[in-house]
Amino acid sequence: MSIGRWAPLSHPDVESVDIDDVLRALADPTRRQIMRLLMTGGDRACGTFGLPVAASTLSHHFRTLRNAGILRQYDDGRQRMNTLRLDELETRFPGLVRTVLDAG
Amino acid sequence: MSIGRWAPLSHPDVESVDIDDVLRALADPTRRQIMRLLMTGGDRACGTFGLPVAASTLSHHFRTLRNAGILRQYDDGRQRMNTLRLDELETRFPGLVRTVLDAG
Repeated sequence: MSIGRWAPLSHPDVESVDIDDVLRALADPTRRQIMRLLMTGGDRACGTFGLPVAASTLSHHFRTLRNAGILRQYDDGRQRMNTLRLDELETRFPGLVRTVLDAG
Repeated sequence: MSIGRWAPLSHPDVESVDIDDVLRALADPTRRQIMRLLMTGGDRACGTFGLPVAASTLSHHFRTLRNAGILRQYDDGRQRMNTLRLDELETRFPGLVRTVLDAG
């Protein structure tokens, strides 16, 4: 249940996801690590990734991934949760996410 | 045979090619079109791509692709030629180039 602490979240429809945005979003090791953690561990709250970056930087990474259409965010009580849009991306760009995450 | 009109070209060794550089270089439709033309038509001189962009812009795209380790340039007489480093990239990042070019 959302407590309305945040502005409404916007997510691009899968049809309007842009390959250039996706590639630029993928071109960062911290963002790829976020994606790997979501792939292996399922949905996860923003504060629980345990990555060695400042909260504001992490917030920027989540926003970049969300705006590119790579992950979806939703509020669960006081927590902002993250989930990968893997099935949608797989439909749009088959094999892309896994190939990139395997690459490094 | 080079006539020495240009500065010496530098190309990163395949071992030092960086996935972030590669993804950023791939995140542009003109650069992906350059790669497709090289994949299907083989080595090609800079002036023969027939793309609707200014020469200076095209030159920037070639340089971005070369610096990222995606293509190799060499001089042949008065022509600067371009060749994809597909086998090297395939060794480093299996499936990446083809998956991205198939994506859009």
